Amino acid sequence: MDTHQHLDHYLETHLDESIAELSRFCAQPSVAAQNWGIAEAAEMTADMLRARGFQVQILPTEGSPVVYAEREGRNRDKTLLFYNHYDVQPPEPLDLWETPPFEPTIRDGKLYARGVSDDKGQLVARLFALDALLATEGELPCNVKFVIEGEEEIGSIHLEDAVREHADLFAADACIWEFGGVGQNDEPHQVMGMRGICYVELSVKTADVDTHSGLTGGIFPNAAWRLVWALNTLKSPDERILLPGFYDDVQPPSPRDLELLAALPDPSEDYKRSAGVKAFIKGVEGGLEMWKAALFDPTCTICGLKSGYQGEGSKTVLPAQAIAKVDFRLVPNQSPETVLRQLREHLDAHGFHDVQIKCLGGEHPVKMDPDDPFINLVVEAARPVYGMPQQKIPMSGGSGPGYVFHHYLGVPIATAGIAYPGSNIHAPNENIRLDLYLKGARHIARVVSAFAQSPE
Amino acid sequence: MDTHQHLDHYLETHLDESIAELSRFCAQPSVAAQNWGIAEAAEMTADMLRARGFQVQILPTEGSPVVYAEREGRNRDKTLLFYNHYDVQPPEPLDLWETPPFEPTIRDGKLYARGVSDDKGQLVARLFALDALLATEGELPCNVKFVIEGEEEIGSIHLEDAVREHADLFAADACIWEFGGVGQNDEPHQVMGMRGICYVELSVKTADVDTHSGLTGGIFPNAAWRLVWALNTLKSPDERILLPGFYDDVQPPSPRDLELLAALPDPSEDYKRSAGVKAFIKGVEGGLEMWKAALFDPTCTICGLKSGYQGEGSKTVLPAQAIAKVDFRLVPNQSPETVLRQLREHLDAHGFHDVQIKCLGGEHPVKMDPDDPFINLVVEAARPVYGMPQQKIPMSGGSGPGYVFHHYLGVPIATAGIAYPGSNIHAPNENIRLDLYLKGARHIARVVSAFAQSPE
Repeated sequence: MDTHQHLDHYLETHLDESIAELSRFCAQPSVAAQNWGIAEAAEMTADMLRARGFQVQILPTEGSPVVYAEREGRNRDKTLLFYNHYDVQPPEPLDLWETPPFEPTIRDGKLYARGVSDDKGQLVARLFALDALLATEGELPCNVKFVIEGEEEIGSIHLEDAVREHADLFAADACIWEFGGVGQNDEPHQVMGMRGICYVELSVKTADVDTHSGLTGGIFPNAAWRLVWALNTLKSPDERILLPGFYDDVQPPSPRDLELLAALPDPSEDYKRSAGVKAFIKGVEGGLEMWKAALFDPTCTICGLKSGYQGEGSKTVLPAQAIAKVDFRLVPNQSPETVLRQLREHLDAHGFHDVQIKCLGGEHPVKMDPDDPFINLVVEAARPVYGMPQQKIPMSGGSGPGYVFHHYLGVPIATAGIAYPGSNIHAPNENIRLDLYLKGARHIARVVSAFAQSPE
Repeated sequence: MDTHQHLDHYLETHLDESIAELSRFCAQPSVAAQNWGIAEAAEMTADMLRARGFQVQILPTEGSPVVYAEREGRNRDKTLLFYNHYDVQPPEPLDLWETPPFEPTIRDGKLYARGVSDDKGQLVARLFALDALLATEGELPCNVKFVIEGEEEIGSIHLEDAVREHADLFAADACIWEFGGVGQNDEPHQVMGMRGICYVELSVKTADVDTHSGLTGGIFPNAAWRLVWALNTLKSPDERILLPGFYDDVQPPSPRDLELLAALPDPSEDYKRSAGVKAFIKGVEGGLEMWKAALFDPTCTICGLKSGYQGEGSKTVLPAQAIAKVDFRLVPNQSPETVLRQLREHLDAHGFHDVQIKCLGGEHPVKMDPDDPFINLVVEAARPVYGMPQQKIPMSGGSGPGYVFHHYLGVPIATAGIAYPGSNIHAPNENIRLDLYLKGARHIARVVSAFAQSPE
């Protein structure tokens, strides 16, 4: 057997043990939004790393602690950093789970539990890959570090501080991101960027109490109307975002990005059918046009509206307060700080001094060079496992703290992992497929080996 | 003792019995919105009238039954109609009641219970006044009819059908309205009109499920945005309602109306202070200007907004559905049917075919001649009871089914009753003052006497 055959043999014969460890980890709730089980999950994370001979530090933050771990490898000149998180989404709505979210259960070749895919399964699959390397080679091929935070599901609000403060400690040559996996046809994906985000709560308060619309409709200011008028100034029905200067920093997709997008399959009809959407906005029909709009357009999304009476039937009330949740998705080289400033200036310029802005989270966009050698290494390492290299996707529609690592540590970031489109992350019945879990671990083991041997 | 002294003596010496009867009536829940106790309350209402020798019919409707009652009086050529309702507002929020809403309790000269002012106390005070007339004169001075519905708190949705169908049965020469009472300084009020209303629920559905804003923000239609843009076309920030033709039928206040408004006290500072409002809209400062805006401007009020995520913090969701509750208050000679048609046409003209309109209630405005002889009779009958005539208020900001009676029965409508500004109607700790209950009954007894003797 060659090295890879030894690795694969180890992984195939130890899968049950790894799944058992993952199940124990998933049985520990760790809901950051509800501050539920965070400290216990951080300890468990640390213990799993210590068991593999890692030096572990539990770094306090103003929120959930960051678990940092490092272990030296044969090639001490190369360091690979894994970014993961031990926190999970809230399990609600509970009644839609077929088995309880914190009682991991195997059915039909899948393991069901909250966090089993996002992100505990990703982390344990990586540990499993390292186990295989340690078992077959006696040591790790290169230095390996883990930065495992506990607030990813609430916007990584204290991660930037931690990375800035510990930039020397976390220093590495490359980074494997917390998510990764395959697409609709089990083809492995390489996602090479993340949009930024500026998430705000806009609120208006015009009175201390709701009043009777018959008595006050003609004379009192109405918080709901103020909010509607203010929102209307942010984006026009043709989807143009109206903050002055909003598009100034936008870098359009490069010819290489467009080439990569054009090579992707067109899931437009699937997207529409599965959500019950009749047509895309902006006249977008599908294909390259859809990919460009979905991944490279900055957006302004109303995520929620709340004011006054919301029950059945009628209640003649004039609302004292109104709230909108709004997210702006940002593309390179926009920044959440700039958008926040533009938003305040814009509202003031339109007379909406009464609209309060509360920033609930900001992340910068980040985008890798699609032809970065490390990315190509990860892409190619997939070939023997999946029968094909990873498909390169130049950007994700979603966001994440990629910029923090890219900016403070200067590392290229690649994705590799165990997720699949049916994983139901953030939803009831979150699950992983055991076959893809094994493939993901096989891929990671190959990535570490190849990285240790790659040129400087 | 003259007739009025006999009446007053009876009322003063039988107050406890009337309050006991009212308490029994209030102990019977009758929440139309929750279909709770309606049939029982209708029976109780009928029993109270039968006990006074009235012929009673419980008229079915498609909703709550209408209790109709009549008794002949000495002057068989004159018929006075009382309009009341036996249904009450929901008692929620329960935790804000000092004593349970359906356990009537006397404290500090006040009787507390849900419906004690709106409208059970008004009805029982009228029965009390008739008791005094029957006791002192042996018969009623004129014919008296009652139309007592059970859906006033949910928009009197089946009343118009009932009045149209039974117009001959309900025929009368004049009508006393279900509400009435005194103002801030215990001065009695005569309210001579009601604005109309067109209450709609606007809804947009752009998908079957909420989706992840990162994945879909750039390509999926957003129900919340569609609703905001549609609402924005209805009214501009200067409070101008933008439906074409909306103001065409508006009859401005007459010189007589303006004269009456100018004679009213200016409660502007009280209004603002009690609700915590900094300034009125439309540059209105107070006085006549305030009264004109509050009572004679048609309005378009957003009563509620609901879409997507409404919890604490952030959730990056693109909403599939959005709902707004909107009420239009109408002034003579606008009509809810016209506004509903204008609204549909307007939304369509602006491309908002996707905005659904559900009409949750419509009432026409109604306005009396401020110098109608019956109104003047009721106004003057207050003088010996309150030490002053009723103060004439040409219009109410609120709405009600006045038009139904005025239009189908041709009767003038006057207000007289027991309410006061601290009655907390529609709110926790609804109450009446026993001194004003007695005064209200004394006034009603005088109104019936005077009406029986008034010229044709």
